[in-house]
Amino acid sequence: MPVEKFEVLGLGNAIVDVIARTEEDFLVSHGLAKGAMMLIDEPSAHRLYDAMGAATIISGGSAANTIVGLASLGIRTSFVGKLRDDEAGQSFAHDIRKSGVHFDTPFAKEGPSTARCLILVTPDGERTMNTYLGACQNLGPDDINEDLVRNSAILYFEGYLWDPPAAKIAFKKAAAISHAAGNKVALTLSDSFCVDRYREEFLELIRQKTVDIVFANQHELKALYQTADFDTAVKAFRTEGVLGAITRSEEGCLIVTRDETLALPASPIEKLVDTTGAGDLFAAGFLAGLVRGCDLRDAGRLGGLAAAEIIQHYGARPNVNLADHAAENGLAIPA
Amino acid sequence: MPVEKFEVLGLGNAIVDVIARTEEDFLVSHGLAKGAMMLIDEPSAHRLYDAMGAATIISGGSAANTIVGLASLGIRTSFVGKLRDDEAGQSFAHDIRKSGVHFDTPFAKEGPSTARCLILVTPDGERTMNTYLGACQNLGPDDINEDLVRNSAILYFEGYLWDPPAAKIAFKKAAAISHAAGNKVALTLSDSFCVDRYREEFLELIRQKTVDIVFANQHELKALYQTADFDTAVKAFRTEGVLGAITRSEEGCLIVTRDETLALPASPIEKLVDTTGAGDLFAAGFLAGLVRGCDLRDAGRLGGLAAAEIIQHYGARPNVNLADHAAENGLAIPA
Repeated sequence: MPVEKFEVLGLGNAIVDVIARTEEDFLVSHGLAKGAMMLIDEPSAHRLYDAMGAATIISGGSAANTIVGLASLGIRTSFVGKLRDDEAGQSFAHDIRKSGVHFDTPFAKEGPSTARCLILVTPDGERTMNTYLGACQNLGPDDINEDLVRNSAILYFEGYLWDPPAAKIAFKKAAAISHAAGNKVALTLSDSFCVDRYREEFLELIRQKTVDIVFANQHELKALYQTADFDTAVKAFRTEGVLGAITRSEEGCLIVTRDETLALPASPIEKLVDTTGAGDLFAAGFLAGLVRGCDLRDAGRLGGLAAAEIIQHYGARPNVNLADHAAENGLAIPA
Repeated sequence: MPVEKFEVLGLGNAIVDVIARTEEDFLVSHGLAKGAMMLIDEPSAHRLYDAMGAATIISGGSAANTIVGLASLGIRTSFVGKLRDDEAGQSFAHDIRKSGVHFDTPFAKEGPSTARCLILVTPDGERTMNTYLGACQNLGPDDINEDLVRNSAILYFEGYLWDPPAAKIAFKKAAAISHAAGNKVALTLSDSFCVDRYREEFLELIRQKTVDIVFANQHELKALYQTADFDTAVKAFRTEGVLGAITRSEEGCLIVTRDETLALPASPIEKLVDTTGAGDLFAAGFLAGLVRGCDLRDAGRLGGLAAAEIIQHYGARPNVNLADHAAENGLAIPA
């Protein structure tokens, strides 16, 4: 029986977000680097959870957020990520399926619990993330369904996949299948500390054309080229000859190809609540535009619009139907 | 060792809220009465969860929300409610303690799982609740710590406690201890369907002066006296000779004593998002005013202010420090 055709397949860490508001001094007293994503072990996760305030629990995970955003934009999507068969894992699976995403990665029946990201949101809306990878550590090449990859126009994955031991092997297997089928591969650099951990490997992915599209924010791009100057980093990236979408928070984004650099303003917002998921949803809007044949300018605008929605509430999953939201803002997604 | 002194002790069903946005037709197709709280068994809870959309998980429970609201207003509070030692139970315990509430009811080590309320929020902000009582069914008189009750100026409990089998026995034990110590007892009628289930018992609690303060919305008050006319219900209540706080959504509230009826307008809001917890937080503000010696007008205003905060976001736990919020609105809580 042939596999259903998908437009975007996401590969990422399947994580449940545990979100609490906090004051700046909590970050300081717990040695947390504001705005970053830090990997923590299970005992540290328990200690931090015990210390942090009352929390809201919402499904998360960077690539998963992007895929759910794409589904909300009306794009046919599927996701691959590893959960344990615990309460958090059941919630994640429920939420992603109910968001319209095809998801059938088998649950781990033993081993570490479903991954959690303890997110502390300061009054300025900035989020500081502390991730216990748990069951994600068991994602491996056996979780890649060849037919699924072959039948997905774009394979999207997160740099964070380099953290668990076998996920990069799963990704490389998927990327080879994807390219062999004539599909595209997209990577988000995830986080500047993640870039610091895996710089050479990420550059190799770009230079060997294992990836066709790269998402990064300005910090990640500067980390990739080890420069403090943004323009220098953009110039270096342009020579790579892959398509780049570089986000700059309230300054909007740059769409970079070998031939041109397109600067787009950020979408206006009323009130910044929680920046969690801004980059993930930018990627969703941009990929939705690309896969439906929009020009780069409209794809970038869709990215900005989706990012603006997500930062005006807690959590990184959309609170509205993004396809309707885009249409209301003059950016209807082409059929 | 003497027990710490508390200002309000809450007794209620300890419930985790599972909140999803939905369209009106989902309620119709699943036979759900809009705006009501319906009790469901575990298989029904699983079926409804499987059908409903991606969800946000936040600690809830009517009396628990009130107690957390009181803590956010700076009032010294404790809570008694029954959880199972599962992931949801651990979250509830974490959240209520981190909200500044004393909580030491032992977890059930076996039996049904922690209670869940599946809440469907329609685009108009109305919530429709479906509660699986789970571990709450095991709350009983053994969970009442006499010293704790004796040392709490107000004992607050929810009418919903009449649903599980032994909780009303726990309440009656606590009420007797409370009155013997010269403390006050407050009841919320919870829900008009709950009033229909237990009308005679609630009237008896009022007429035998087992309760000193009653919270109700207009529907619950009309259900109590089986009249379609609100003024008739208010007149009937006035003759009972207990203090009543009657909420009327956007029309504000009435504070009713034997001698006077005080009408107060609702606090203004920018956007109605989710009415879950409106009554619970009104009770929090009102009790905070009472226990700190405010007059009835200011107590009612505090109730309105706390209710207005809660209905402008998802979930029934405050998103801001309510004491600061009250002070900023000219209603500083007296020390």
